[in-house]
Amino acid sequence: MIVEIVTTGTELLLGQIINTNAPYLAQRLNELGFNVLFQSTVGDNRERMAQVLTTALSRADIVITSGGLGPTQGDITKEVTAGLLNLPMHVHEPSVRRIELFFEKRAAIMPSNNLRQAMMAKGAIVLDNDRGTAPGAILETGDKTIIHLPGPPYELEGMFEAAVVPYLQQRFGLQGIILSRVLKTFEIGESSLEDEIKDLIIAQTNPTIALLAQSSEVLIRITAKGESKEAALASIDSIERKIRERLGDKIFAVDEETMESVVGKMLTAKQLTIACAESCTGGLLTSRITDVPGSSDYLLGSVVCYSNEIKVAAVKVGADILAEHGAVSEETAKAMCKGIRQQFNTDIGLGTTGIAGPGGATTEKPVGLVYIAVDGPAGTKCYKNEFSGSREKIKYRTTQTALNILRKYIGTL
Amino acid sequence: MIVEIVTTGTELLLGQIINTNAPYLAQRLNELGFNVLFQSTVGDNRERMAQVLTTALSRADIVITSGGLGPTQGDITKEVTAGLLNLPMHVHEPSVRRIELFFEKRAAIMPSNNLRQAMMAKGAIVLDNDRGTAPGAILETGDKTIIHLPGPPYELEGMFEAAVVPYLQQRFGLQGIILSRVLKTFEIGESSLEDEIKDLIIAQTNPTIALLAQSSEVLIRITAKGESKEAALASIDSIERKIRERLGDKIFAVDEETMESVVGKMLTAKQLTIACAESCTGGLLTSRITDVPGSSDYLLGSVVCYSNEIKVAAVKVGADILAEHGAVSEETAKAMCKGIRQQFNTDIGLGTTGIAGPGGATTEKPVGLVYIAVDGPAGTKCYKNEFSGSREKIKYRTTQTALNILRKYIGTL
Repeated sequence: MIVEIVTTGTELLLGQIINTNAPYLAQRLNELGFNVLFQSTVGDNRERMAQVLTTALSRADIVITSGGLGPTQGDITKEVTAGLLNLPMHVHEPSVRRIELFFEKRAAIMPSNNLRQAMMAKGAIVLDNDRGTAPGAILETGDKTIIHLPGPPYELEGMFEAAVVPYLQQRFGLQGIILSRVLKTFEIGESSLEDEIKDLIIAQTNPTIALLAQSSEVLIRITAKGESKEAALASIDSIERKIRERLGDKIFAVDEETMESVVGKMLTAKQLTIACAESCTGGLLTSRITDVPGSSDYLLGSVVCYSNEIKVAAVKVGADILAEHGAVSEETAKAMCKGIRQQFNTDIGLGTTGIAGPGGATTEKPVGLVYIAVDGPAGTKCYKNEFSGSREKIKYRTTQTALNILRKYIGTL
Repeated sequence: MIVEIVTTGTELLLGQIINTNAPYLAQRLNELGFNVLFQSTVGDNRERMAQVLTTALSRADIVITSGGLGPTQGDITKEVTAGLLNLPMHVHEPSVRRIELFFEKRAAIMPSNNLRQAMMAKGAIVLDNDRGTAPGAILETGDKTIIHLPGPPYELEGMFEAAVVPYLQQRFGLQGIILSRVLKTFEIGESSLEDEIKDLIIAQTNPTIALLAQSSEVLIRITAKGESKEAALASIDSIERKIRERLGDKIFAVDEETMESVVGKMLTAKQLTIACAESCTGGLLTSRITDVPGSSDYLLGSVVCYSNEIKVAAVKVGADILAEHGAVSEETAKAMCKGIRQQFNTDIGLGTTGIAGPGGATTEKPVGLVYIAVDGPAGTKCYKNEFSGSREKIKYRTTQTALNILRKYIGTL
């Protein structure tokens, strides 16, 4: 089955937003065994959208659109499709009630515009939206299928997984089952990783192994086709074991796990508490730790000590240390993690200090220089790092590295 | 002039990489006054690439391709175009020498494959590549123009700026210019916003007004076409004034500004310092404040007081307040912002306490209940909120609302 993805929206044509829906859909559809051969983007213009959809229907079996299901006059995807197929539109009552409920839950009144979102072409299979107000729709016409999904990625992804995947599996009798598992690696670049497991990648046809570089980690996606769920899982398990033999603890998480959730599990299992003294990360490290539900069991609190006065007053860093070595130094980082551990009476203290930029650099201390220190039952350790990128990237990379240092430290306890 | 951008490459169809070339080209072309009305993506397949290029040439005046200029057998963009236009190909000697030089400079020998990159259709205007080996090309055929650019973004951007922009300016004697401005709104939903300015949206053809809903704000994009930069800016200014009359301070930022950068500017202008006591936001509020370069001028520090013990010890919240009203209460929120202001000796203190979920809720205190309090020269104010969504969404919405409260508070000083 040939698929064309049609993303709509003037903001895409103007280049104001990056299109992440097309790669998401493309990747998932390929995993499910569909061939995505074309992707098109068109604005919120009736004539040109009709033209693009007509071309798509002439060369693909399945056309998936994203965007244009909102409440405004510019949201025209469903109308244009109904026009092309000569289908009348009607109000879909269950969708009206779902949208009303969405607003009720937020103690708000539904603006009348939102009724547009419940308008459906005759015969449409309506797809509920658990993450927003715009329902999606599937239209079957002869041997062609058109699937309308909302534009916001969070809504599109939720609807695709919950409603479209089961529909495609049933409609096209996908034989067998396709399952994926993602192994997340840290401390290794994409080409080195490829070198490490190239023979496995080349030798494998089922499961397949694919690499995907992200901003501070490389993902390994294992995708298996099996006659049953058990068979697919068994073949994923088998190849995962081989990969783990090569990479060891460079793999830090699986699937939905994150660095912070893995660290949280370890802290919980060992019944340890933690506090952070953050300078250059400005609260981001603690924010990531507290993104994990239940983190109040181990994270007691933190101090963001941006000014030297607060490093001294709230974290008890010695004024002499700051005077002698400066705020960005191994000595200060160590004093920060020891000080916060003592002040907040936790098992572990974690400290970050560095130059996030763009200002504040000197010849000896360039932008990106960051010290990360940890103090706990296994003593004090400090790591010097030189990160590159924007201020926000340097903050993020510092937190990812700090959490990884913490992961390895807890592993030794 | 209508432009279509055709990005090529199987890795795009598989969703393995994000397409950044299309938005880059789209944004630049719009700035130059061209209308990018279509974007297409196709893989490294002769038949389908020919089909996509034929469609593009039928509906656009200028077709810009990216990718497929490399040395491998899969790089076919120039060949396919030459085939469509019935043009013979020949070796372009100056390009051969440039490619040889590229390898010489790196003390390497040119692989013979790379000679493919110097093959050009008869009549092509060759575009030098200062950042890689693949030259680009322009083909003029009747009233249509085809421009081939390399796939790697760094090479594409360099060639576009150095060679394509001057070509377009000369060839099309660029009339007029298109400029956009984005107004960011808070505290108002997409449909209500549309209700407020619907008449302006409908009445406008130049500038045009478009709405775009994002996770916690709605954007208003004004796009103007003018004979000069000044003319375009003047017509944007004029419509912006009309919109501001309706929306007032619901507009919090323009273009690249964020809530935190706007608050930072206000704090700097009024020479005020700030500290936060964060419970449910877990450090995210301070992290956003410190995302702004130079924020160390006004953000002295913060305490993430997750546990009650730390609320008492580090923020000096009265144990009696916690015992009587609980951690999630107006009284505690007020004590937090007052306490942190006093402890860290700042002009303003900001406090957040609430239930981010998914656990921790009671009948009286549901997930999403959040108190935000601010203390400063204008006294103490506390706001009760009920947010919905995931733990991370509730955290983010709390910070966005807290920053907005801070923005309005500073506005009164």
